Amino acid sequence: MTRPKRLSPEAQAEALATLTGWKLVQSREAITRRFVFRDFSEAFGWMTRVALLAEAMNHHPEWSNVYRTVEVTLATHDAGGLTELDVKLARAIDALAS
Amino acid sequence: MTRPKRLSPEAQAEALATLTGWKLVQSREAITRRFVFRDFSEAFGWMTRVALLAEAMNHHPEWSNVYRTVEVTLATHDAGGLTELDVKLARAIDALAS
Repeated sequence: MTRPKRLSPEAQAEALATLTGWKLVQSREAITRRFVFRDFSEAFGWMTRVALLAEAMNHHPEWSNVYRTVEVTLATHDAGGLTELDVKLARAIDALAS
Repeated sequence: MTRPKRLSPEAQAEALATLTGWKLVQSREAITRRFVFRDFSEAFGWMTRVALLAEAMNHHPEWSNVYRTVEVTLATHDAGGLTELDVKLARAIDALAS
C-alpha cells in the first residue's frame, strides 16, 4: 500500500466543506466530531459498525465513549496529519450515523 | 434499585488493594486502568465483551480507544464518586482481560 500524503490546507478546507459536523482539532492536525445517541446500547452498536468499517479500511479512529456520547477523532499517524484516508473514513462514519 | 452509596476513603483503599492495575484518578473521584492488546481487532473485541457486561449491569465505563490501547475510567455518576458498582465492574473487567 502506498503511504497516503498529507492534505494541503486547501484540500483540507475543501474536504471539510463536504463533511457534516466535523471540525479541525485545535492542538494537532486532525478532525473531530461528537455523536449523541439514545442510550449506551445504541452508541456502542454504532461503534461496532464503525469498528468493522475501520478494520476493513485498515484505518482506525481515536475515540471515546461516555454512556450515549461518542467523540471521534481522525488523523493518519503515519503521515503526521490529515490524509484522504481520514476524509474517506469520516464520510463512511457520517453515512452510518445518518 | 437502591442508589449506591459512595465508598469511604478506607473502603476505596481496601477495594483498590483487591484490584489489578487500577489507580485513583487525580482530578476526580474515579478509578482508571489502561489495557493494551495485540491490535485493534483484539482491543475492540474485548471492548464488546465489556460493553455487554456493562449493559447487563446497567453501569457503564467511560473509555477511550486508540488502535490497540483502551483506557477505562469508572465512577458512579449518580453518587458523584466511587461506589461498590465501580468495584464490581472493575473486577468483572479484570476477569475478562486476564
